[in-house]
Amino acid sequence: MSEENKIGTYQFVAEPFHVDFNGRLTMGVLGNHLLNCAGFHASDRGFGIATLNEDNYTWVLSRLAIELDEMPYQYEDFSVQTWVENVYRLFTDRNFAIIDKDGKKIGYARSVWAMINLNTRKPADLLTLHGGSIVDYVCDEPCPIEKPSRIKVTSDQPMATLTAKYSDIDINGHVNSIRYIEHILDLFPIELYKTKRIRRFEMAYVAESYFGDELSFFCDEVNANEFHVEVKKNGSEVVCRSKVIFE
Amino acid sequence: MSEENKIGTYQFVAEPFHVDFNGRLTMGVLGNHLLNCAGFHASDRGFGIATLNEDNYTWVLSRLAIELDEMPYQYEDFSVQTWVENVYRLFTDRNFAIIDKDGKKIGYARSVWAMINLNTRKPADLLTLHGGSIVDYVCDEPCPIEKPSRIKVTSDQPMATLTAKYSDIDINGHVNSIRYIEHILDLFPIELYKTKRIRRFEMAYVAESYFGDELSFFCDEVNANEFHVEVKKNGSEVVCRSKVIFE
Repeated sequence: MSEENKIGTYQFVAEPFHVDFNGRLTMGVLGNHLLNCAGFHASDRGFGIATLNEDNYTWVLSRLAIELDEMPYQYEDFSVQTWVENVYRLFTDRNFAIIDKDGKKIGYARSVWAMINLNTRKPADLLTLHGGSIVDYVCDEPCPIEKPSRIKVTSDQPMATLTAKYSDIDINGHVNSIRYIEHILDLFPIELYKTKRIRRFEMAYVAESYFGDELSFFCDEVNANEFHVEVKKNGSEVVCRSKVIFE
Repeated sequence: MSEENKIGTYQFVAEPFHVDFNGRLTMGVLGNHLLNCAGFHASDRGFGIATLNEDNYTWVLSRLAIELDEMPYQYEDFSVQTWVENVYRLFTDRNFAIIDKDGKKIGYARSVWAMINLNTRKPADLLTLHGGSIVDYVCDEPCPIEKPSRIKVTSDQPMATLTAKYSDIDINGHVNSIRYIEHILDLFPIELYKTKRIRRFEMAYVAESYFGDELSFFCDEVNANEFHVEVKKNGSEVVCRSKVIFE
């Protein structure tokens, strides 16, 4: 198979309600676009959610790391490329490039996915999925950003607490992956966004939360530019962790 | 000018993070799409925000009313048509049709816009805008839903209170029009959304709110299916009002 067919390319424009007060695309919206691209790319190649669901399997996002030199500005066109870097038995690595209106690569992202059986909620073997055909799409396109790292949070005083509401919930009844990003970025004071921008953003999705769950946000300020955040539901169970690096 | 050129048509798909737990497109996302279509339609015809901004004018959304028989389901294609119904000296009425994957009209929307001078914040005369050319686009396409109505709220006990955060704020430094919709729909219990759907949704935008403003939500339950909501900032000034009708 040619390398070109292994890479999917998708066009976007930075819509007005998708940019922040600086006029730059928000990290939540970019994350949404990346996950949509993952879906388009997988569906077009026969291993998308619709196909998997027929066999009672689905994709579960485990890790996401995004690193950018700049974010598209309001009304600017940009595109996202995505490809599969590795397929292991229980995980697959999918990478992304974010390309600005002039064709310049302004950022990259890495994601890690598992496949689970919808009945048992147990992980499934990716190497046997559709006769192992996903392996045919593995591509050695470079992705020059670090892999998602381990995130440890020590703070035991929540910085904020909220209850998961209607708008947070997706078709599976879970708080959706993008809403966590928005809630985490809402922890920081506006002054930080006035003088700095997010260079790298990481999410580790650990467990699901549901409508009515109380989500508490614990934050370690590692240094003036780096924050580690842990989200717990109902005071105990970890839901996700995040690393936010400004510059 | 032909009636066809007066109507703009735009294609969408109901993305996974844009649907609620029922798998239906959320009202906030639909509102976002409608406002984008308004922008595309106006820009393509020479009276969009970019052109206006050069002359120090901008569009301000005053009213929005959406009424639907059903919402697009996850992954379904749908389209939005928009056209100008009336142009007055200080306001213009722009209407919309929402069309499902099979070409059936499943809903309509009405919006009312003013134009303001960015320096004085005073309303501008639409009939003299670009030599009055906006009037050439007035179109008599039917829009068989009621006009936005007057909304009165009597409750003086807030149902919820929140502080406007980073993710709420748009490029103008205001809480964005779509976020109000989401916050208002988050007032209702999940049980309501399990058994009923929103048939009609209205917004009246009265004043701007800003980062850090405390937004209080006052709600009159007019009957089991109809709710009138008023949003005030910092305990006093009305920011917007809404009418939510379930069925």
